[in-house]
Amino acid sequence: MPADRVPAAQVCRFIAAAMERLGLPAEDAHTVARLMTAAEVQGSDGHGVIRLVPYARRIRAGGVNARPHIRIAKEKAAMALIDGDNGMGHLVMHKAAQIAIAKARQCGVAWVGARASNHAGAASLYARMALEHDMLGLYFAVGNANHLPPWGGLDLLLSTNPIAVAVPAGEEPPVVLDMATSVAAYGKVRARAQRGEALPEGWMVDRRGEPLTDPRRAAEGLLLPIGGYKGYGLALVIGLLAGTLNRAAMGSEVVDFSRDDTTPTNTGQAILVIDPDAFGEVDAFKARVDRLLRELRASERMPGVERIRIPGEQSHEKRLANERDGLALPPALREQLDVLARELAIPALGED
Amino acid sequence: MPADRVPAAQVCRFIAAAMERLGLPAEDAHTVARLMTAAEVQGSDGHGVIRLVPYARRIRAGGVNARPHIRIAKEKAAMALIDGDNGMGHLVMHKAAQIAIAKARQCGVAWVGARASNHAGAASLYARMALEHDMLGLYFAVGNANHLPPWGGLDLLLSTNPIAVAVPAGEEPPVVLDMATSVAAYGKVRARAQRGEALPEGWMVDRRGEPLTDPRRAAEGLLLPIGGYKGYGLALVIGLLAGTLNRAAMGSEVVDFSRDDTTPTNTGQAILVIDPDAFGEVDAFKARVDRLLRELRASERMPGVERIRIPGEQSHEKRLANERDGLALPPALREQLDVLARELAIPALGED
Repeated sequence: MPADRVPAAQVCRFIAAAMERLGLPAEDAHTVARLMTAAEVQGSDGHGVIRLVPYARRIRAGGVNARPHIRIAKEKAAMALIDGDNGMGHLVMHKAAQIAIAKARQCGVAWVGARASNHAGAASLYARMALEHDMLGLYFAVGNANHLPPWGGLDLLLSTNPIAVAVPAGEEPPVVLDMATSVAAYGKVRARAQRGEALPEGWMVDRRGEPLTDPRRAAEGLLLPIGGYKGYGLALVIGLLAGTLNRAAMGSEVVDFSRDDTTPTNTGQAILVIDPDAFGEVDAFKARVDRLLRELRASERMPGVERIRIPGEQSHEKRLANERDGLALPPALREQLDVLARELAIPALGED
Repeated sequence: MPADRVPAAQVCRFIAAAMERLGLPAEDAHTVARLMTAAEVQGSDGHGVIRLVPYARRIRAGGVNARPHIRIAKEKAAMALIDGDNGMGHLVMHKAAQIAIAKARQCGVAWVGARASNHAGAASLYARMALEHDMLGLYFAVGNANHLPPWGGLDLLLSTNPIAVAVPAGEEPPVVLDMATSVAAYGKVRARAQRGEALPEGWMVDRRGEPLTDPRRAAEGLLLPIGGYKGYGLALVIGLLAGTLNRAAMGSEVVDFSRDDTTPTNTGQAILVIDPDAFGEVDAFKARVDRLLRELRASERMPGVERIRIPGEQSHEKRLANERDGLALPPALREQLDVLARELAIPALGED
């Protein structure tokens, strides 16, 4: 393993130690750590280790309940509505996915929604949980800050509500789509702005609808939804399914968790699990997925295009590489983690 | 009613008479007619009366089974897989939606997929069926011709697989999103090309990836997915859910029904129904939807924008207007219908 890299297991232990010191029960601390590390390992670094410091700040400020009683508030054969008791979103949706998988095994399909949840990190983590059981997973969430106006509007009333879909394959890596409904996620805008790089045209507009590319003006910009009014429509219906249906925050009720550490976010999320075994022979299904993916991959490419990619392929490759080589955490992030370790009086990363 | 307009009920009777003469049982003919008319009435004219002539051609060519035995091939508490026996897609998905609604009432949520189906017209028709029961409906379909390459590719292996989502409101019209995963549906391209109008940049590219705006070159163009690789990913996962999962056609198996009248299309579709009653008080849910829609509608607008629209609002207004004023069918379409009436020896439209 290269010297500047950290084994994923070490990162996971560090996060777990921090979470436990922040008041989470040991098992919960480990679950959160495992999911945050999995996000980092698959290259979803915006939802990985970088979130530990803001999560810690929010837990210490009392904005997240470190010892929630996560319970089923409503239930039928193929659905449940979970009340997350303002716990870490990872714990809420980890439980939601487990319930959905068990119910899908019984009923063929199951939907589990959550309210009083919190930011749960990478959407694909929960859709992917279905894959371990040879099932399909779909995840919907209300984002934790509004950066999108309704189409034609100026008020930021919508988040870039993401959707993730995971479909098992046979010999091929699974299909894993994980996308925000805006052209660019706000994290990408922030990253460019921090580096002083211009924003590509099409990411943001200003309040007159003109393209906004100056990174210094990012804060006054409006994100553009994919496909114009179509992406607006998708963000809205995902919010209705993951938020409004669950009596979770939507529209102006959404709490911007990057500016407010104390108000409960009442985040809403939902997961849908489909058991292909109910539709026919699972191996035959996975073989059909393989055949389709190979057909796409082998198809003719546009001049200059090196390869046809399948959604989830890049994160699959990153996962393999990072598991082998360890994680490359930026020096600034390492420093933040060192500060956090001192504050929490836990061993620094790699020194446990 | 203006003189050049036809009452919807008359159009419905004409379609039903044609379908019955084409060999459909009377009840099935009426169901198809009702759904095709509903598409026309809500302004989905690409899926309305204009389809009657090609449907008739296909039925007469033996490409569609006029008297199918539509049956449940697989079933669990919250799912079913329907074998459409190559019947009209409207009949298959009408039955699928009814089963999904009944199962959702029992289980909270239900998913019904179909194979051996055919083109079913406007996606929103089936998602909207849930609304009559105060439920949410989601519809997914594999389109009936491939116009989309994988991202970076040239081979037309994907259709602009649509999704429709219907969410009931209280006093407000329901939210009804109905969208193809391409920037423009192929029907819109064809309509512009027929009128000789240039295609807006962003609809299509040529085989070198350059914008294609010349309507005379539309046939060699590639449709662009919304949000680039995101729309490609959506088209792919919708195809996996509606096609591959059901053992229906996907990828190169898709039959282009505008060029081939005889090969069974083995079209795949799926519907998901969610009963909000399982999640809490239905009226309270609908009141939350109302509140959100009013908040969006009342929000600040960009300069030059007359109003903030909610998905489904325009078709709602068209439905009200067309129910009141009747349907305005283009003269060329009226002529086609007259020819069809003579061929089938049924009374011309409005003369029954």
